[in-house]
Amino acid sequence: LNPDIFEIREKVLKRIVPSKAERERIYALSEELIQRVSSAARKASLNAEVSLEGSVAKDTWLSGEADIDIFLKVDANLSKADLETTCLAVAKKAIKGYRPVERFADHPYVETFIGDSRVNIVPCYNVEMGMWKSATDRTPYHTEYVKKHLEASLKDEVRLLKRLMKASGTYGAEIRVGGFSGMLCETLISYYRSVEKTLQAASRWREGTVIDLENHFGGDYEEIYDLFDQPLIVIDPVDKARNVAAAVRHDRLWEFVSVARAFLSRPGLRFFYPPERRGISRGELARALVRRETSIVGLQFGGIEAPVDVVWSQIFKTEKSIVNLLRAKGFTVIRSSSFSDEDDLNIIMVELESQALPKTMKHAGPPVERANESDSFLSTHLGALDTVAGPWIEKDRWVAQKIRKHLDAYGLLKESLRGGGRNIGVPGLVAEIIKHERFKLLTGRQLGRLLSSEGFSKFLSSYLSGKPEWLR
Amino acid sequence: LNPDIFEIREKVLKRIVPSKAERERIYALSEELIQRVSSAARKASLNAEVSLEGSVAKDTWLSGEADIDIFLKVDANLSKADLETTCLAVAKKAIKGYRPVERFADHPYVETFIGDSRVNIVPCYNVEMGMWKSATDRTPYHTEYVKKHLEASLKDEVRLLKRLMKASGTYGAEIRVGGFSGMLCETLISYYRSVEKTLQAASRWREGTVIDLENHFGGDYEEIYDLFDQPLIVIDPVDKARNVAAAVRHDRLWEFVSVARAFLSRPGLRFFYPPERRGISRGELARALVRRETSIVGLQFGGIEAPVDVVWSQIFKTEKSIVNLLRAKGFTVIRSSSFSDEDDLNIIMVELESQALPKTMKHAGPPVERANESDSFLSTHLGALDTVAGPWIEKDRWVAQKIRKHLDAYGLLKESLRGGGRNIGVPGLVAEIIKHERFKLLTGRQLGRLLSSEGFSKFLSSYLSGKPEWLR
Repeated sequence: LNPDIFEIREKVLKRIVPSKAERERIYALSEELIQRVSSAARKASLNAEVSLEGSVAKDTWLSGEADIDIFLKVDANLSKADLETTCLAVAKKAIKGYRPVERFADHPYVETFIGDSRVNIVPCYNVEMGMWKSATDRTPYHTEYVKKHLEASLKDEVRLLKRLMKASGTYGAEIRVGGFSGMLCETLISYYRSVEKTLQAASRWREGTVIDLENHFGGDYEEIYDLFDQPLIVIDPVDKARNVAAAVRHDRLWEFVSVARAFLSRPGLRFFYPPERRGISRGELARALVRRETSIVGLQFGGIEAPVDVVWSQIFKTEKSIVNLLRAKGFTVIRSSSFSDEDDLNIIMVELESQALPKTMKHAGPPVERANESDSFLSTHLGALDTVAGPWIEKDRWVAQKIRKHLDAYGLLKESLRGGGRNIGVPGLVAEIIKHERFKLLTGRQLGRLLSSEGFSKFLSSYLSGKPEWLR
Repeated sequence: LNPDIFEIREKVLKRIVPSKAERERIYALSEELIQRVSSAARKASLNAEVSLEGSVAKDTWLSGEADIDIFLKVDANLSKADLETTCLAVAKKAIKGYRPVERFADHPYVETFIGDSRVNIVPCYNVEMGMWKSATDRTPYHTEYVKKHLEASLKDEVRLLKRLMKASGTYGAEIRVGGFSGMLCETLISYYRSVEKTLQAASRWREGTVIDLENHFGGDYEEIYDLFDQPLIVIDPVDKARNVAAAVRHDRLWEFVSVARAFLSRPGLRFFYPPERRGISRGELARALVRRETSIVGLQFGGIEAPVDVVWSQIFKTEKSIVNLLRAKGFTVIRSSSFSDEDDLNIIMVELESQALPKTMKHAGPPVERANESDSFLSTHLGALDTVAGPWIEKDRWVAQKIRKHLDAYGLLKESLRGGGRNIGVPGLVAEIIKHERFKLLTGRQLGRLLSSEGFSKFLSSYLSGKPEWLR
């Protein structure tokens, strides 16, 4: 082991391994919660098994960041509606002193905060392995698997890996992140046997890397690639039909690979605890905009009333629809990015080489081979007022030189968002907000008005630098 | 037969079928030339068969445009060097009173003009069918085939087809045109049996249409497509390994298809005799440039000393290299075109959406997967003075936002052409001219200086309209 790395590990472990006192506190709280939920279930005549799941049960949580997941396992023949109503009522009752908030992933659950711990009370079905009825039914099997197979000595390796991923923004399977889940970390450590070996392997990962811890497929890659098409395939030890890394997006995967390489070549504590990013000032924003001479178009809109995963899904779809529109109309998009405080401030930013396009453009028509389409292309464009030259034949297609309808990105967006923008692909919830004019189109400069949001200010600083933190 | 078409045919035929007097004159001249060449060959002790080939021999020439092709068929064991020197000397001697000019296709030949007839004296090898030693050896077999198989009644159909193709700029297999040869017209008419049926068929041609007049392949399309990959495949009746349409470029093919459709839907004499295009005035040029707001970059350079096919090949390669360079550097090319008077005026024009580019651009790097390339991308761009943001990871690649080196098309071209431009793909003969600074970079406006060339003036007028003549 590299002595630098050994020293870094020790420093990090001091901060992330829970103390005896924290453990006792968390387990006592967990026990109390189990009792409360069980008792509430009994009172509601709900036949349920209540258990502690997740990283607390697996002893892989990071000190100070315990998520206590209490599962309420109900009979498999309970209807989905009952699961949602009865269980939720039981859960709320059990923690009614702690301001329970209803949340939603695949189905609803209840969340609250007690001290520095987040508490989730999650209903699921008590099913046999593989007979999943809801997305959370696998969790108890995951907990059981990790408790049984992850050696005590590897738990701190999992903690180190999680800390490194959190620091680089690659941790978390939620839509906002699209990164590595806790179960994925545990599976990787079980497979590679240490954080260092995981990083060494990751630094050489290829598109389509397969990790089959339980050897469910006996090395039959053809079958594996028939089933999974994600860039990283980690067969779920308790369910051969599932990829534990299914949520990992391309960018997050390759960011992690890049972090692994960077850490191994120049190890440092900063990979676990990066220097905090300062927010940006109005003056710094103005200077950055002058230096790049690009045009940053901002779409600011009000809060989306929906669970946080839905919020991010709506925001990402909106971002994509706007980028696609601008590209289709001839603008050169350099990059786009979205910010949300998950409350009432959502901002989609698209950076363009230029906000204005030249007056005329080449407009490609159908292949000459297709007689009817050619006829209609000719009758549309031949002699039309906005045809500057042509139509002519280029290789095997008709082409015409046309005057553009939209020379300005703001004008194009204003017109396309009129009425909500459903027709350009803006998803329902955001389209509703836009339809009711709870949005603004901002220039790069005008984004400066929103710097009072500390989160946005840091986001914008990071956006403008464009570098991932570990390359700083 | 459509009565309109009948009337048009009659009018055109009156102009293109040679009169009895013209025939007699051309055949007498041909006979005399054969005698002169034969006698010159005898005097040089060259064992050669002298014959009349081509459209005069086949009786498919257009009145007033006779090309008299006299072939000098020599022994197959004569060396290529001897073919070129001895035969050329004989040919020159035979017509020494008529200012013979040496030309070059696959090998050298001699050309002159007598009255309104072009006379070519072309050496070739006297070989058995299929045992071709030079590109012209097939011609006597073509002549023989057409004389034998093309019914007298179809000769005027060939003439009509040629006239229509000449009018639309699709006639001629030379590099400048990349269109339909005389032999191809004769093969099409033999196959389709009239100009009207040829046009009807052509209006429905698909990419990869096959015409196998002699049924050499018995309908085995797999074998045909293994051998030929051109968009139109017309199996040579005298050589199953050759495509008579090999020289037909995509644009010429589809232009002809489009002419065929236009003629059939609205027949008119103009398809055979289009109104002559006027040249453009300086004022008209200025107005056209203002209307489109594009930037037309002109490269003017001096005469290329080479056979005309080589001249055009050099010009087209130069055009392509400049277009590729501009595209690679981020400019949006709408169209490019080249003019040559085949003497001392060559002009390559490239029309750009805009002559100036925005200051920064997105620069795509390697996939993160490739560790070494990623390392070198990062060490080049991370913290570099011309890096405005990034590198960041987009999907699976590194990307950086960079300041462009060249914001202006003229600056880019000036620098890239310094020393000749071989490294951007400018071919040898043009690179030599450019290296010796016998070139100018012109703006669209400055092209107005060259309008004293009537040819260029008409070319520019046609370029700016962008429409093929038959769509006017």
